[in-house]
Amino acid sequence: MSSDLMDQERLRELLTREKLLAVVGTSAEHVTYLSGFWAMPQWIRKGPQVYAVRTAEAKASCVVLPTSIADQAADQSLAAEVHRYGFFAYEGEMASAEEAEDVQLARILQGPDHRSAAEALAFGLKRIGVESGRVALDAEGIAPDERDRLESLLPGVAWVNAAPLLRTLREIKTAPEIERLKRAANITERSIEAALAIAREGSTERDLARAFHARTVAEDAVPVLGCIGFGSRSAHPNVDPSSKRRLRAGDNIRFDVGGRYAQYRADIARIAAFGKPSSKLKAYHAAVSAGLDRAYEVIRPGLRAADLFEQVVATVRQSGIPHYRRNHVGHGIGLSGYETPALTPASEDVLAPGMVMCIETPYYEVGCFGVQVEDTVVVTATGVQTLMTTGRELIPL
Amino acid sequence: MSSDLMDQERLRELLTREKLLAVVGTSAEHVTYLSGFWAMPQWIRKGPQVYAVRTAEAKASCVVLPTSIADQAADQSLAAEVHRYGFFAYEGEMASAEEAEDVQLARILQGPDHRSAAEALAFGLKRIGVESGRVALDAEGIAPDERDRLESLLPGVAWVNAAPLLRTLREIKTAPEIERLKRAANITERSIEAALAIAREGSTERDLARAFHARTVAEDAVPVLGCIGFGSRSAHPNVDPSSKRRLRAGDNIRFDVGGRYAQYRADIARIAAFGKPSSKLKAYHAAVSAGLDRAYEVIRPGLRAADLFEQVVATVRQSGIPHYRRNHVGHGIGLSGYETPALTPASEDVLAPGMVMCIETPYYEVGCFGVQVEDTVVVTATGVQTLMTTGRELIPL
Repeated sequence: MSSDLMDQERLRELLTREKLLAVVGTSAEHVTYLSGFWAMPQWIRKGPQVYAVRTAEAKASCVVLPTSIADQAADQSLAAEVHRYGFFAYEGEMASAEEAEDVQLARILQGPDHRSAAEALAFGLKRIGVESGRVALDAEGIAPDERDRLESLLPGVAWVNAAPLLRTLREIKTAPEIERLKRAANITERSIEAALAIAREGSTERDLARAFHARTVAEDAVPVLGCIGFGSRSAHPNVDPSSKRRLRAGDNIRFDVGGRYAQYRADIARIAAFGKPSSKLKAYHAAVSAGLDRAYEVIRPGLRAADLFEQVVATVRQSGIPHYRRNHVGHGIGLSGYETPALTPASEDVLAPGMVMCIETPYYEVGCFGVQVEDTVVVTATGVQTLMTTGRELIPL
Repeated sequence: MSSDLMDQERLRELLTREKLLAVVGTSAEHVTYLSGFWAMPQWIRKGPQVYAVRTAEAKASCVVLPTSIADQAADQSLAAEVHRYGFFAYEGEMASAEEAEDVQLARILQGPDHRSAAEALAFGLKRIGVESGRVALDAEGIAPDERDRLESLLPGVAWVNAAPLLRTLREIKTAPEIERLKRAANITERSIEAALAIAREGSTERDLARAFHARTVAEDAVPVLGCIGFGSRSAHPNVDPSSKRRLRAGDNIRFDVGGRYAQYRADIARIAAFGKPSSKLKAYHAAVSAGLDRAYEVIRPGLRAADLFEQVVATVRQSGIPHYRRNHVGHGIGLSGYETPALTPASEDVLAPGMVMCIETPYYEVGCFGVQVEDTVVVTATGVQTLMTTGRELIPL
């Protein structure tokens, strides 16, 4: 993996505008975003200290990691310089390593042990000429003691909260990010198909969930969100697939689902009808689908997210659910499931090319059913393009 | 789910000793631990504000949640009182709900909307008589603005960092926790068997990983850790299964793997030999296994974790790897993959009945192979009991 997830030119502009010398990522998502590095232990638990530094110059970047995960940096052929800290027992004659990744590992291990994450980071920053001035620091992942140490090691640096910069950067996706998001969404669509393929009278929600996740892992994605509900349980927004509720004629099946592929998230929704759907189900499904149709018609650069919200909600109301209420009709998606833009009535976000968003119009009627369609789309220079390969129709079974 | 994961009597003792009126969990693990509540959105992303309160009296407990996940509290039949905040559009005639979970949901929605997480928490605390005095607050999950609001709403409360109390509580597992941990470990063992069942000349690490995760999801667990490496790649501690490296005669296969079942983690390791193993592989595997055999012999309540470390490392050295070095030989496991006790040379932890630990003696020789066995065990009143169903031998293929 060495294609940049991030847009170096945009970073340069934003750093210049904010008079920042560098940005330092410290949480799993930000390390991956800034360096392309997937630091596995940081993704699966809290605590591991892995950092990524980027500056206005693509070459002046570095990654800080515990020696225990130097193997990952070698295996992923990181473009950035690597500074390691802490002891870890890699044995063997490094000098005689033959495999390319072992040669790379030996090279990283030849570098000094900086003892702590903060010391390695301070070393890395100094090496690229950052010893004083403004630096944007991601506060999410750095441990308090490392932060204290860092501040004392670089007393000339003014640390600025990196959250606004990173939010602005991440909001506009690059081509490699869109590719991953599309793949994640399409794996999720195929996982829905796999779940529906085993649906029979008497199947449980849990049976469908197993088939769903089996397809997700068969395509090298990781299960994350898996709400699958039948009938009145489809009205539970966060339904946890049950091994008790059995499928029967007349049930709808609501999927609000999505895994993670190459660290990027999916979040889509579809409705199937097992047996002949009621006229109410058909009418309500059509109404929420009309909301998405409207979104596809109006999304373009420059549209205010709040206006998109109003138009989508008004359309659902006019199309058959006059009492429709909703706090949002979607959200950005990327390394996280919820990113900006926020498609809410109070949102100040404005759509721009490269934004990738989930557009959704769920409706939950307790004791009856839930209907929901959710697509992932990208804003283009002139309008919108879907990342989906399946339609939004009520799926007959 | 309504069996308590936590030991109410131990909580009462610890609260009394520390002169604390209550403990408030704010992160996903702590909310689940204190209330049994699996708040799905909190487990899959950062941000959602869900809290759980426990006091010395089992009945005086509560859960705070956004209205959007009231369906989950209803579906999980929470024992604790539920206080909700924020708007969410559940439609329909609640009064005519028929399913038990819908009746429960209607009851939760009848309660007032407390507008913010902090207001709901302050309300819940006051309702159980906590308005002044010392309260332990988990700082991990609460948003800074909610924390500020909470402090201003309850000016008489002295907030104490809950981390030490929660660490001490969680260190000793209850029977329901041990049951989940055993199930998680056993699912992982069966997932290793499923991966090995498809291993052929020319299989890739990724092929085995897919078969591994397929078994994990078939048993209702979630993939988390999946390091599977062949030959020299087995010496990479964090090996990410590759679609390039193909299995050939003489390769060993290292698994360091484990999913999550009912929120509890697994982390185990095994080695297989594809074709006739080299005498070095046999000898080194025997040496690291001897380290675990030693752990099983010596673990008992009262043993210092640092002494366990010394004995295990010394045994590996005496058994065939004289240059063996290691920074730890294991760690506690529970809702998180790494918990106390820490089995390190500097550890001050002392083993006690109910501690569940992963015991491991990995050895990584770059350019050659990695060998590792890792078992999950529970400390009993008189010694140790394994949670595994498979042995530690080198698995012939």
